[in-house]
Amino acid sequence: MNPAQETRQRIRDGSLPGPTAGLAPGFVQTNLVMVPRSAAFDFLLFCTRNPKPCPLIEVVDNGYEAKASASGSDLRKDLPRYRVMLNGSEESAEDVTPWWDDDMVSFLLGCSFSFEAALIRAGLPVRHIELGCNVPMFITSHESIPAGIFSGPTVMTFRPMPAHLVDKTIEITEQYPHAHGGPLHVGDPAEIGISDLTQPDFGDAVPIGDNEVPMFWACGVTPQLAVFNAGLDKVITHDPGHMFITDISDLA
Amino acid sequence: MNPAQETRQRIRDGSLPGPTAGLAPGFVQTNLVMVPRSAAFDFLLFCTRNPKPCPLIEVVDNGYEAKASASGSDLRKDLPRYRVMLNGSEESAEDVTPWWDDDMVSFLLGCSFSFEAALIRAGLPVRHIELGCNVPMFITSHESIPAGIFSGPTVMTFRPMPAHLVDKTIEITEQYPHAHGGPLHVGDPAEIGISDLTQPDFGDAVPIGDNEVPMFWACGVTPQLAVFNAGLDKVITHDPGHMFITDISDLA
Repeated sequence: MNPAQETRQRIRDGSLPGPTAGLAPGFVQTNLVMVPRSAAFDFLLFCTRNPKPCPLIEVVDNGYEAKASASGSDLRKDLPRYRVMLNGSEESAEDVTPWWDDDMVSFLLGCSFSFEAALIRAGLPVRHIELGCNVPMFITSHESIPAGIFSGPTVMTFRPMPAHLVDKTIEITEQYPHAHGGPLHVGDPAEIGISDLTQPDFGDAVPIGDNEVPMFWACGVTPQLAVFNAGLDKVITHDPGHMFITDISDLA
Repeated sequence: MNPAQETRQRIRDGSLPGPTAGLAPGFVQTNLVMVPRSAAFDFLLFCTRNPKPCPLIEVVDNGYEAKASASGSDLRKDLPRYRVMLNGSEESAEDVTPWWDDDMVSFLLGCSFSFEAALIRAGLPVRHIELGCNVPMFITSHESIPAGIFSGPTVMTFRPMPAHLVDKTIEITEQYPHAHGGPLHVGDPAEIGISDLTQPDFGDAVPIGDNEVPMFWACGVTPQLAVFNAGLDKVITHDPGHMFITDISDLA
């Protein structure tokens, strides 16, 4: 077994119940969205129209094994924690077998862990990692392109970067299209509808220094918001921070 | 009106009934596949799993105007000739309004015209264009990745190229991912299941010189075969060579 398979096994056994940041370093981690088959076309179209917030790693349309990206996996059990939305009410679960059935289609979407690891390897500062907190996330005025029942604002993550390192940061993150790619916005937060950088909509606030520039990347919460607002009878997603670990190398 | 809009108008009026090669130079031309909504998820998934033969330019899931790529267009009338498959029997049409209804979802897929124009601009020889015939196409042993009801072999176009120009050809075509991108195979045709280069499955045979290397690219006939073999009640596609002309610049 490779380290990713070993980690999935330990998560399935219940011995790794926490967030997955730092687990199985070197392997791509993903967001998970499961929707009923009747909504699968609209959601896949939403992902293809909004590839930066929704970078498709794999679509599992038959069963619960992510055969292409994680051989032997079980998407019902291999994430430490899930969110289950049933007719508008939400609960948390560590195993979604009771809610899963053949009608569910699973989408694995890339997350920013891969490019953050690359930034750190290159010696660039990633503030929320330095501080040991969650990345700050903002609902912006940048609307995603709707598809059928799915629509909503683009959520972006915020990372401050010293001015002389901005170009290098763009260059590195652009090499990771499957991890949200290059930034959507660099500079004045007001231009994307953010009035106060100290009040993120999700995650934790981080300080920005005098010679630092605010940088914003598309965030996987974008499809989560779109899915939760679509009025579906049943939706299953990962719980934030509790990702699916694939067998794919996270080197660009 | 730009030249692409003008050309679409003339096609709609019936004054340009022939193939579209050479029309509205500088604008991207596309394949068209229309399927019933019940098959749209499987077909979109087939395209995302096989991006080289099926490069998505736009999906029209609501109406018949390709709003993103061709403002004011009418996909029922703006191609010079269509193929209509109804319960397994095929007919040809210049206007598919009688068969179109709101249940149809339209897929526009890139075609190789864009990269051929780029090769010619760079002074590289494109044999079938020099000879004024159709590009030769072969059904290969390279299977596409199935998605639901869609599967089948990858069809490839063949272009011979002088050995010293192979690298340049790869470099240029890789800049056109929305026009099938770089070649899928370079060299011995037997490795992809082709026994006789003089007997293409579609299009016309072209000669290959002594110091020339066979090069093969993914072809838009791949999704056509997959769609025709899926047993759908109704499918509408462009007639080969009679493409949809978009407002998108075909420069990389």
